[in-house]
Amino acid sequence: MRLIAAGGGQVCLELDVREDQTQHHGFVHGGIIGAMADTACSWAAATVAGDVVTASYTLQFHAPATTALLCVHAAVIKQGKRNVSVEARVLAVDDNGAERRVATALALIAVVGAG
Amino acid sequence: MRLIAAGGGQVCLELDVREDQTQHHGFVHGGIIGAMADTACSWAAATVAGDVVTASYTLQFHAPATTALLCVHAAVIKQGKRNVSVEARVLAVDDNGAERRVATALALIAVVGAG
Amino acid sequence: MRLIAAGGGQVCLELDVREDQTQHHGFVHGGIIGAMADTACSWAAATVAGDVVTASYTLQFHAPATTALLCVHAAVIKQGKRNVSVEARVLAVDDNGAERRVATALALIAVVGAG
Amino acid sequence: MRLIAAGGGQVCLELDVREDQTQHHGFVHGGIIGAMADTACSWAAATVAGDVVTASYTLQFHAPATTALLCVHAAVIKQGKRNVSVEARVLAVDDNGAERRVATALALIAVVGAG
Repeated sequence: MRLIAAGGGQVCLELDVREDQTQHHGFVHGGIIGAMADTACSWAAATVAGDVVTASYTLQFHAPATTALLCVHAAVIKQGKRNVSVEARVLAVDDNGAERRVATALALIAVVGAG
Repeated sequence: MRLIAAGGGQVCLELDVREDQTQHHGFVHGGIIGAMADTACSWAAATVAGDVVTASYTLQFHAPATTALLCVHAAVIKQGKRNVSVEARVLAVDDNGAERRVATALALIAVVGAG
Repeated sequence: MRLIAAGGGQVCLELDVREDQTQHHGFVHGGIIGAMADTACSWAAATVAGDVVTASYTLQFHAPATTALLCVHAAVIKQGKRNVSVEARVLAVDDNGAERRVATALALIAVVGAG
Repeated sequence: MRLIAAGGGQVCLELDVREDQTQHHGFVHGGIIGAMADTACSWAAATVAGDVVTASYTLQFHAPATTALLCVHAAVIKQGKRNVSVEARVLAVDDNGAERRVATALALIAVVGAG
């Protein structure tokens, strides 16, 4: 995963999909998409809250990802004392740069210093 | 609940909070906020998919709602054959019209005709 | 809602469904089921963690509830310093006492003292 | 991942954690745990519903996983026409066989034939 941009509660990551990260239909494994979403959400929270750990996330899959490039945008919705709410969009980017949303996440990231 | 606007995958609802919808701290019951979010998400899905039923939703509470007016905006993220993904923001609106986000929902609404 | 039992991280609540809590098909409103699940989860957390507030919950609807009696069982899965994980089952109970699971919730309840 | 048992709506998988699957604190990456939970839930659904695809899941992390062995148990809660509800527990198993729950998932798995 490449960090494209981070700061102010927002993070953008990219991933060049390796062949061993696809399953038998040529789709990117859901686990890869989940890992991208989780990572982006926790990093976005870290830009505003320092040391954090993912407490929970909900991930919806909208469509299979079949492109060689994936990117994820995560943005903090609300920063609380104990938990930070973050949402993320995972996009499949084709060779022409066209984007298609393949998954959406809503995460609750716990602030480690708190409690 | 008042329907303010609906169409094209989007819905806006308002609620004048009654006293019996608050708990002992004067905050609006979480159940009221959940019901608003669920209703708005399923109606938003219905504007594009017809007969629907909520399959699941995730609701995050960001802050207590203490205003007399609540509104919820729901928008379809992705329309699939079997399920429609919808996100919603619940806002507390004070007497000056200032809005504060109090909850966020991510819902999966099942299309009744499908399957 | 009637409190049937509470203690040691577990709570059982019952609700006699009123006619105004059903929608036009005679099914219990999803908002009522969400409110029962949320309440049971936060009370279950409170039995082990004191003052708490719901941070988020995910609710899945399995089947419409058409009985006059609903009950919900909630049980703490894990008690952390900042958040308590709780799961809940909402059951429709018919006149013969037969139970049918109509919804499942997985909640994250924040400990108010922490942070 | 090793398939230990599958059938009747239930699945048990194990994973021997490789060093490159841990992060700098020696904890297993959340993405690995998410992938195990997602895989187990979709396989459990497949044992009763055939061809399926994950529509969404919610994952709660309870504690860091520091053992060399992880296992996940998934069980179908409810089989609908369009969607199957599945819950999963991810356990860290130490060298003495003692288990500790590190994560819980609640998944909605879409039946591919439907719709």
